Amino acid sequence: MPLYIKSVEKLINEFRKLPAIGPKSARRIVYYLLKLPPRQIEDFARSLIEMKEKVKFCSLCHNLSEEDICHICRDGSRDQEKICIVEEVGDVTILEKTGRYRGLYHVLGGLLSPIDNIGPTELRIPGLMERIKKNRVSEVIIALNPTVEGESTAMYIKKIVTPLGAKPTMLASGLPVGGDLEYADEITIGRALTDRREI
Amino acid sequence: MPLYIKSVEKLINEFRKLPAIGPKSARRIVYYLLKLPPRQIEDFARSLIEMKEKVKFCSLCHNLSEEDICHICRDGSRDQEKICIVEEVGDVTILEKTGRYRGLYHVLGGLLSPIDNIGPTELRIPGLMERIKKNRVSEVIIALNPTVEGESTAMYIKKIVTPLGAKPTMLASGLPVGGDLEYADEITIGRALTDRREI
Repeated sequence: MPLYIKSVEKLINEFRKLPAIGPKSARRIVYYLLKLPPRQIEDFARSLIEMKEKVKFCSLCHNLSEEDICHICRDGSRDQEKICIVEEVGDVTILEKTGRYRGLYHVLGGLLSPIDNIGPTELRIPGLMERIKKNRVSEVIIALNPTVEGESTAMYIKKIVTPLGAKPTMLASGLPVGGDLEYADEITIGRALTDRREI
Repeated sequence: MPLYIKSVEKLINEFRKLPAIGPKSARRIVYYLLKLPPRQIEDFARSLIEMKEKVKFCSLCHNLSEEDICHICRDGSRDQEKICIVEEVGDVTILEKTGRYRGLYHVLGGLLSPIDNIGPTELRIPGLMERIKKNRVSEVIIALNPTVEGESTAMYIKKIVTPLGAKPTMLASGLPVGGDLEYADEITIGRALTDRREI
């Protein structure tokens, strides 16, 4: 006799794979879904598929976009001579929310990490260098998390952008060292943007 | 210019509706999903729909089931004269995991709560009384959370099952008062089952 219902356990396992969801939360979520009308579940499933179909990554900055070029790169009113470098797409939204930045972005997709075999070629460094040359970028604002990997990636970027004539700057302190950009408040991030310092 | 991608925000909102998921976790989950291959997203969406299509509630005990009658009610080797009353379907799995109970179950679907207008007719009390009479149930084990609503629901059940000839018992203490059955460990729940006391 089975202790569990197969289709229920399968879905619990799908939820367990997601970040920040443990086994008890996964079970709780699935029991909650079981009580919902079928229509709502179908909406949920459709939103999943739709997002995956519609959302691409901008071919210039690798930010999320429903078009080939994202709305930030398309926006001619933004300062084309400034590029802000972030680790993940989520960081673009976090910085945009501060309303203190009107330049472009470049999403690295990770940080340098010799332990995990992530070198410059694994990140989107070649594309960044191309954009710096083409846009005659005067400033590269490095907005990475203040961790060991973040700082060493920043140092690497400083080394490669300086010969291209771009001034490297980074977010001012104000972010607690060892912390995560994702959990800082908007005012702190806004101030850190304004107070960015040359490195 | 939109700050957000519509299909991404829509999915974040779907995740925010789920229990135990806050706005930051929802965003984190969706960015994680964006990195997965489309195949895995389709599997996830299909698991959702499939579960909703396949899973019904047992017409006798209201436990989850892919058939009209669940595997526990169908199991002739189980003690038909004992019924264990639980609040939610998840509680059946928790009790089954202890391996200490071989009777049947009855899922109430909630607790009595005058404030929320939940009276005996909102719960599955009539079905319970019918089953007690039909199976000539000798013992009704009340396995509800040791909260105010749980205790008062237990008292109500004691009052209605006693005239039907069934002895009401409840889980022994061992569960911290004011706590939640879902977060207790299996050994504690197993001991509470063995030490159940008459009320």
